[in-house]
Parts: sequence; C-alpha cells; structure tokens
Amino acid sequence: MSTEIKVSAKSNPNSVAGMISAEVRQYRTAEVISIGAGSLNQAAKAIAIARGFVAPQGIDLICIPAFCKVMVEVDDHEEERTAMKFIVEPR
Amino acid sequence: MSTEIKVSAKSNPNSVAGMISAEVRQYRTAEVISIGAGSLNQAAKAIAIARGFVAPQGIDLICIPAFCKVMVEVDDHEEERTAMKFIVEPR
Repeated sequence: MSTEIKVSAKSNPNSVAGMISAEVRQYRTAEVISIGAGSLNQAAKAIAIARGFVAPQGIDLICIPAFCKVMVEVDDHEEERTAMKFIVEPR
Repeated sequence: MSTEIKVSAKSNPNSVAGMISAEVRQYRTAEVISIGAGSLNQAAKAIAIARGFVAPQGIDLICIPAFCKVMVEVDDHEEERTAMKFIVEPR
C-alpha cells in the first residue's frame, strides 16, 4: 500500500520528488501531506520536479489539492491540525 | 483568451476559487501564478475550493505545478523572479 509522504518546510524538494516518483511508479498514486505554507511550497516544487523524473516513462503527473486533518504532537499531547494533501497521479 | 490569475499571500482563497471556476468553465483551463510560500498556500487552498465549485457540473479539476519566471517591480526597476504556476484543468 502507498504511504503518505510528509513534507516539512526544510524538506529537500529533489529528495521528495524522488519519493513521489517511486510511489507513483509502484502504486500509480502518491499522497503528499504538508502543514503550513513553507511545507506546501516544498511539496509543490517537489511535484513539479517529479513530473520531470517520470515524464521520460510517458507518465504525465497531475495533482489534486485537498484539505485533510492530521494529528500533530504539541508538547505532551496531540492536537488536530488542518493540512493540505496533494494526491499525485498519472493523468 | 484565458488570463493568468495572480495570487498574493493576502488573497482570499474563496474569491480566487471563484475566478478559477469561471476561467475553467469558459476556457477549460486556468493559470494560477504565485510568488512565495504564502501566496502558493492561498493558491493551493483556492484550487481545492474551486474543485467543490465545479464538481456539481461534472468537472473533476486537476492541477499541474510548474516553475515559471515573472518580472516584478522592485523600487524603480523590474527584476526576474522564479514563481510557481498551477495549470488548472478538467481531468
């Protein structure tokens, strides 16, 4: 089963792009989760880069942005946060 | 011809979503340009919201993130900046 790729503001877009490409090649879909603007920025860059990684295999990657809820650890408890998820798939 | 929708960090995602929906209904495509993480965050939210606006008409909106260059006015001259563009289309 495909795993969620969690992206932070410090993630390297190239590494994330590699993970996205690998997921899409294996499972035909990837889910990229980001919390906050900095993280979303890296996620969008990663998807643009991943398009280039899989294009030579004839895959035209598209993405679907969606809202989702994630639990994040804050101090000693968990809190619910709204995150953005990009569902990445071949067109 | 379809016009580019420029999004800032202060843009209202609902208003931008309305513009995206209108463009897609009329031209079958919309281009959403953002410079910087805050602006990209609003753009991604707007696309997620726009999906809900056009879904009842049987349109499944997808987006393609891409890098692009834009000229921005800095003080008294223009400078080139790398921006992100979301090409929004029916699947």
